[in-house]
Amino acid sequence: MKSVLEKNNYGKSSVRVLKVKRTGLIHDITEVSIDVQLKGDFDDVHLKGDNSKVLPTDTIKNTVYVLAKENPMNSIEEFCLYLGNYFLDNNIQISEVRIKAVEKIWKRINIHDSSEKEINQHHPHNHSFISPGNETRNCSLKISRDEYKIKSGLNNLLVLKTTNSGFEGFIKDKYTTLLETKDRIFSTSIKAEWKYFKYDIDFRSIHDTVRNLLLNTFAEHSSLSVQQTLYECGKKVTEQCPEVKEIFISMPNKHYLKFDLDRFDLDNFNEIFIPTDEPYGLIEGVVKNVKNGKEQ
Amino acid sequence: MKSVLEKNNYGKSSVRVLKVKRTGLIHDITEVSIDVQLKGDFDDVHLKGDNSKVLPTDTIKNTVYVLAKENPMNSIEEFCLYLGNYFLDNNIQISEVRIKAVEKIWKRINIHDSSEKEINQHHPHNHSFISPGNETRNCSLKISRDEYKIKSGLNNLLVLKTTNSGFEGFIKDKYTTLLETKDRIFSTSIKAEWKYFKYDIDFRSIHDTVRNLLLNTFAEHSSLSVQQTLYECGKKVTEQCPEVKEIFISMPNKHYLKFDLDRFDLDNFNEIFIPTDEPYGLIEGVVKNVKNGKEQ
Amino acid sequence: MKSVLEKNNYGKSSVRVLKVKRTGLIHDITEVSIDVQLKGDFDDVHLKGDNSKVLPTDTIKNTVYVLAKENPMNSIEEFCLYLGNYFLDNNIQISEVRIKAVEKIWKRINIHDSSEKEINQHHPHNHSFISPGNETRNCSLKISRDEYKIKSGLNNLLVLKTTNSGFEGFIKDKYTTLLETKDRIFSTSIKAEWKYFKYDIDFRSIHDTVRNLLLNTFAEHSSLSVQQTLYECGKKVTEQCPEVKEIFISMPNKHYLKFDLDRFDLDNFNEIFIPTDEPYGLIEGVVKNVKNGKEQ
Amino acid sequence: MKSVLEKNNYGKSSVRVLKVKRTGLIHDITEVSIDVQLKGDFDDVHLKGDNSKVLPTDTIKNTVYVLAKENPMNSIEEFCLYLGNYFLDNNIQISEVRIKAVEKIWKRINIHDSSEKEINQHHPHNHSFISPGNETRNCSLKISRDEYKIKSGLNNLLVLKTTNSGFEGFIKDKYTTLLETKDRIFSTSIKAEWKYFKYDIDFRSIHDTVRNLLLNTFAEHSSLSVQQTLYECGKKVTEQCPEVKEIFISMPNKHYLKFDLDRFDLDNFNEIFIPTDEPYGLIEGVVKNVKNGKEQ
Repeated sequence: MKSVLEKNNYGKSSVRVLKVKRTGLIHDITEVSIDVQLKGDFDDVHLKGDNSKVLPTDTIKNTVYVLAKENPMNSIEEFCLYLGNYFLDNNIQISEVRIKAVEKIWKRINIHDSSEKEINQHHPHNHSFISPGNETRNCSLKISRDEYKIKSGLNNLLVLKTTNSGFEGFIKDKYTTLLETKDRIFSTSIKAEWKYFKYDIDFRSIHDTVRNLLLNTFAEHSSLSVQQTLYECGKKVTEQCPEVKEIFISMPNKHYLKFDLDRFDLDNFNEIFIPTDEPYGLIEGVVKNVKNGKEQ
Repeated sequence: MKSVLEKNNYGKSSVRVLKVKRTGLIHDITEVSIDVQLKGDFDDVHLKGDNSKVLPTDTIKNTVYVLAKENPMNSIEEFCLYLGNYFLDNNIQISEVRIKAVEKIWKRINIHDSSEKEINQHHPHNHSFISPGNETRNCSLKISRDEYKIKSGLNNLLVLKTTNSGFEGFIKDKYTTLLETKDRIFSTSIKAEWKYFKYDIDFRSIHDTVRNLLLNTFAEHSSLSVQQTLYECGKKVTEQCPEVKEIFISMPNKHYLKFDLDRFDLDNFNEIFIPTDEPYGLIEGVVKNVKNGKEQ
Repeated sequence: MKSVLEKNNYGKSSVRVLKVKRTGLIHDITEVSIDVQLKGDFDDVHLKGDNSKVLPTDTIKNTVYVLAKENPMNSIEEFCLYLGNYFLDNNIQISEVRIKAVEKIWKRINIHDSSEKEINQHHPHNHSFISPGNETRNCSLKISRDEYKIKSGLNNLLVLKTTNSGFEGFIKDKYTTLLETKDRIFSTSIKAEWKYFKYDIDFRSIHDTVRNLLLNTFAEHSSLSVQQTLYECGKKVTEQCPEVKEIFISMPNKHYLKFDLDRFDLDNFNEIFIPTDEPYGLIEGVVKNVKNGKEQ
Repeated sequence: MKSVLEKNNYGKSSVRVLKVKRTGLIHDITEVSIDVQLKGDFDDVHLKGDNSKVLPTDTIKNTVYVLAKENPMNSIEEFCLYLGNYFLDNNIQISEVRIKAVEKIWKRINIHDSSEKEINQHHPHNHSFISPGNETRNCSLKISRDEYKIKSGLNNLLVLKTTNSGFEGFIKDKYTTLLETKDRIFSTSIKAEWKYFKYDIDFRSIHDTVRNLLLNTFAEHSSLSVQQTLYECGKKVTEQCPEVKEIFISMPNKHYLKFDLDRFDLDNFNEIFIPTDEPYGLIEGVVKNVKNGKEQ
């Protein structure tokens, strides 16, 4: 019997950075948490305890801060690429770098503004809602000496609609107790991740477009199933964002159970629901643009 | 030696309700998590295992849902009061009810809206920011057969300003290493809880006013310490909301540490910071309106 | 209208310390998270931005580490007292110090031990279980120039028994749907906090005794309600720990709902349950020793 | 431009089950959280809103509970296999099932036992510790009509050693500030996942063996790096568990930073440390048994 080291990687996770950019009195901020993982010629570290090729994770951390100083951080995608190239260019023993960035969302405070409600509801939807939860902008980079791949994404986009969602015509077997319904609450916390045809693009503007398409499609779609809405979202994104090659969408079905008021001789015309966290349905799919250009 | 039951209370926590109100095509939703605690004549439950005066916590839960059907839930304050009175009126053995409500924030989705950025930034502040985190609207009720008290509040209002905050002139002792600074990041997750002079008021509108005053004061105040800003916030609220008798404010100081770039022969003109979660300063205070009317 | 500063306090929270004590080859560790809050002559900080009496929270943090070096940390109670006295003795402007300590539980790894199961089950209970979750040892100190109070406690002691627990004879009203039961799952995550008659005692040994009494009483008691078991636990502690003056016990009722197998023509002889987190019953009480000695 | 559905899968997550087995007065319990994901002929659900081949996630949930009744649940691995085969056998449209199980750890309460300390420390290690955190037993199954794969694992095995760990001889570049050390705290929360040569084995006993080998190797190894200890752990497991084909180990380096007492003219002989959660090093590797038998 013989043991071999099959694979390995290492790095630093959760390196948190705030960058402040000052243009006269106007300040802009970017807060991001970075994970870096390295692959390369590290067998002797494991087998012999020889650390001579190890860039310490503490140095990885310092490097993230220094490069945050140097780079304008116009988008997390460009910053990840800048970081990835740095580690490859300065460390001959490294063959591949993977970087993930999670950006926290900060907006400007609106002062003199006692009317936030009206402003926010310029085109308010009748029955579709969003909860300002822990939404983040995400990206991931995989870079080697030959090529690189960038994926962009968002997470925790929490939405709910009170109508225009049904679920009927499904299989009934001996363990089925779910009733068919033409009208139910549909709530989900959208996670999405998309790939690009090419990378000389405006990542932030595409992010905003993808996010708006997801929100509008969720709000407007007459849903026969979570699956159908998920596909419609992916279809809209791939059709209306020509830069997006494919999009993965994950829609946990955050069930709102109708409270049984019949037991108390009361009606429940879709008025009173029990929000639940678990168990939850989980629906995932990938929609791809198959007509557009050559892949990068 | 003799053991006695000194105090006791019981109830149901985290009863989650979604209420949908339908006005034609326009739907409104309220999602709330309710905690109920009862005090009263419950000694025999503990001492003899006699449950004849126990309203089961499962029934408390059912009652919350039924009363959510009956009550319009115009504000969490009014709903708590409705609940509290119900339990007292229908259970002679109960002498006091305490109810807490935590409301989740849902906003309407704005469709046809690719310009959310501009709309949201109608009066954008130069250097003060808000993160749409897990902010909640809260209230608590304590009601007995003679009287009741309502407190309203908010939690997790996460803000950050990049300038107009300093900290100087403090005590230096043998364990002091902190440097004085005229210009630092100031970030906090505001928790506030306020009491009223009287209760025939518009709770939701007062909530919006208090929230705006907290945000504007945080953004505009030239801060010499967290304490000074906290007091200024409380002063503005008690002066400009005549209904508010006193306000408790808690400001955890979410430290953003300046990353030391000197070691690498680089300047850090308040550009690169390390966001940290712990340890954190915690500053708390109560500001009271002492001139206004008689207390309720 | 006039605003006044009614109350205030400040300090540092979540100061985390690991102390290693070395006795030859044997090392002992204590890991603790400390919260310090100060009250005193701090009006001018709030009203005038005058920081000349402010001990910065950063210095509070440094002081915790230095005093962790000086003090043997034989118990968190003694360490809190040492800290509290330090702040009072060295800061004339401080009138009261409150300190909380939460100790993480670390046990020695048993090597050469493939038989942990048998060793751990020396006196295994037939139907009562414990889950090694996030249990902590806690204490809190309140100290002024005249007196001090210490409370000790534990949190997150997660237990479950599969029988010897029922709930019958309760009120049935129009919203009751709960069925009476002679035999149900009883699971709770015990929180307890106790006060002492005097403080020249062995805190760690009393902690172990209280914890064992809570566990044994939970396991052995034939429960007619959570309330009755809670009281029995408090009674055993106050009767068998003469140092304990009174104990507060909180027992969230972590409901395990019987899954309805009837719908599928199957029996469920208390075999298959749905663990749930919310909503949960919450039962709390204080049991006091009224015969013993004079209070401190 | 044309959009196509590239991939899809759906199912139910976090289905929590408690099973009680009663052998006379002795009760055994298993608490597990199950995730099920299905792949198959589901294009029309997405493209046409045709649900006729959809087994609702609610039925998936019910099925988990019914099968928990039928199956002895001797190990989570056997239960997952039983579940996976059920879904394939009863649903012609399903081509692949993936199931994850996370088992919560429950131990029997030891009553009449005021001496837990001594019993637990039968072979206590001098300087290596374990914290009874949120450790879980895990497994994952991937099953199609042709074949299946089982992986077993554990998560959140939190350990710490106060000596016999160093880190020296690493790369120094312009951003390096880390000092070399012969003696540091080494703490990690081990995650491991292993594959088997064959499946007619005692999963629970192998789990215990792997866990003991990880603990003992961590405690005893003279560590020159996290990587070296990780490899040694994997080597011990693959050499001493002939059933294990390969093991993935993830070791987040939970840094304990030495508090700088020099500033206060005090020594810190590895006594006082700052526990930190982030950033953290993350070291991962796969060790494989390359000599043993044929793969399944």
